[in-house]
Amino acid sequence: MKGEKQEIHHTKPIRCIVKLGGAAITCKNELEKINEENLDIVSSQLRQAMMPGWSSSMKVLGMDWSKRHGESEVSGNIEDFVHNANVDSSRFVVVHGAGSFGHFQASKSGVHKGGLDQSLVKAGFVATRISVTTLNLEVVRALAREGIPSIGMSPFSCGWSTKEKNIASADLAVVDKAIDSGFIPTDVFGVYDRPPTEPNAVLLREIAVGKDGKWSVVKPELQNMDKQVQTTVAAHDTTGGMETKIAEAAMIARLGIDVYIVKAATNHALRALSGELRDNIPDDWSGTVIRFVS
Amino acid sequence: MKGEKQEIHHTKPIRCIVKLGGAAITCKNELEKINEENLDIVSSQLRQAMMPGWSSSMKVLGMDWSKRHGESEVSGNIEDFVHNANVDSSRFVVVHGAGSFGHFQASKSGVHKGGLDQSLVKAGFVATRISVTTLNLEVVRALAREGIPSIGMSPFSCGWSTKEKNIASADLAVVDKAIDSGFIPTDVFGVYDRPPTEPNAVLLREIAVGKDGKWSVVKPELQNMDKQVQTTVAAHDTTGGMETKIAEAAMIARLGIDVYIVKAATNHALRALSGELRDNIPDDWSGTVIRFVS
Repeated sequence: MKGEKQEIHHTKPIRCIVKLGGAAITCKNELEKINEENLDIVSSQLRQAMMPGWSSSMKVLGMDWSKRHGESEVSGNIEDFVHNANVDSSRFVVVHGAGSFGHFQASKSGVHKGGLDQSLVKAGFVATRISVTTLNLEVVRALAREGIPSIGMSPFSCGWSTKEKNIASADLAVVDKAIDSGFIPTDVFGVYDRPPTEPNAVLLREIAVGKDGKWSVVKPELQNMDKQVQTTVAAHDTTGGMETKIAEAAMIARLGIDVYIVKAATNHALRALSGELRDNIPDDWSGTVIRFVS
Repeated sequence: MKGEKQEIHHTKPIRCIVKLGGAAITCKNELEKINEENLDIVSSQLRQAMMPGWSSSMKVLGMDWSKRHGESEVSGNIEDFVHNANVDSSRFVVVHGAGSFGHFQASKSGVHKGGLDQSLVKAGFVATRISVTTLNLEVVRALAREGIPSIGMSPFSCGWSTKEKNIASADLAVVDKAIDSGFIPTDVFGVYDRPPTEPNAVLLREIAVGKDGKWSVVKPELQNMDKQVQTTVAAHDTTGGMETKIAEAAMIARLGIDVYIVKAATNHALRALSGELRDNIPDDWSGTVIRFVS
């Protein structure tokens, strides 16, 4: 065997886990509608972050060769691959929320509460999965159009299962590798001290997590702030709302993995993806960083 | 724990593996087009075979609650579930071919020959998977509309991989359970002694497989038949053609699992699904049975 061939089998570390918020990539108030514009920008930013060797003079080599709605021809530029060098890309894991996909089916059937022995819940499980798979396929296609070799994977197909809303069993072969940083966009700039629609809401720019897993706001230094930060929990959010998401981000940060919560499809998101915020958070950056402080 | 609750965790044997041929559920000569009519009939026949307790006076409880193309409302009858008893269904595994999905992407990139270190092959892998996932989602939706609680599973997501076109690794937890019978439809009535478009082609109604794995035609008793039966191999069929499919059916039959090759969406298919052919093949049934003879 040649050394060159062997290198392919080396496992490169995962650089980043990106979670795209459901509200960022779908139109949350319109049933099963994708926010095409945001999804395209997000996909383009991910390409830029993943492929540092890529320059604007190079063609984007799209990998979605399927027909698009209303077209009879495939939309690929297959011949381009033959004449182009392989651009090395760092390994990203992209996770996404459901937004206006799946929530309707899940809340109608109560599938998130369990009870698959009931026919309504079982039907809701099937219906929810159809809806979120439709979204997942469109996310994969958007990434592929940007030349990102993405593969959709369903937690269910991977043998994951939950109990009491926590993961009960999971094959972590893909996920347990070294991870550098986490990143979670929502439809606002980051986490606020109260619902961001309120006029005096303050963006929490830095949250520190201690050894005991407890978190506290470091920047800005807030006066008269309640110990318990108010956060929005939309009534229809079957996946738990902001409070749960911060608690989960704190658990990740405690492992030494920085978590960025930023607004998708903005320059702030691109800067977080690029890694430039790892040592210092500049004043002109809007977002929330959650990290471990020993 | 109640006895009733415990029963859910008992593993029922899988009654049947149904393979839907790509040519049966898609329009093979039109890129990425589903044969909606056939797919609907096939799904309805599967419901009838799976739910022997279902009667025509009962409502079909559709499980696809997603919007259909061009509609703004979901197409579910969710309230019906509350008032309906759970109809017990036997366990089927449904597998399907790709037809006019995936083949274009696979053959353009040569992905079926391997070589994922080449950028064209890697892109072809992504593009093929997008195309076949689109088809799979539509098959799942068609089954769900008939009230069949179906879950799409990709071999890739299950950790399957191939080497030299054979399965190299697979988590068989789902598949290695007891299986009663196999069933593989194509776009003709069954397997013929020569390309079925030729005027003198004879349908092979029964093929016997011996302990050594070799197969021979039992019915009809053919005169002057070549030892090697001629079969059609379409030039663009990246998955191997009829010869490979018969050889694989013979391998299954050797395990004591009957294999039926029938035309999808016909009464012959429904009769095979119902199990009525297990002891005797009636003269008015058109199809091919491949089974083990000790």
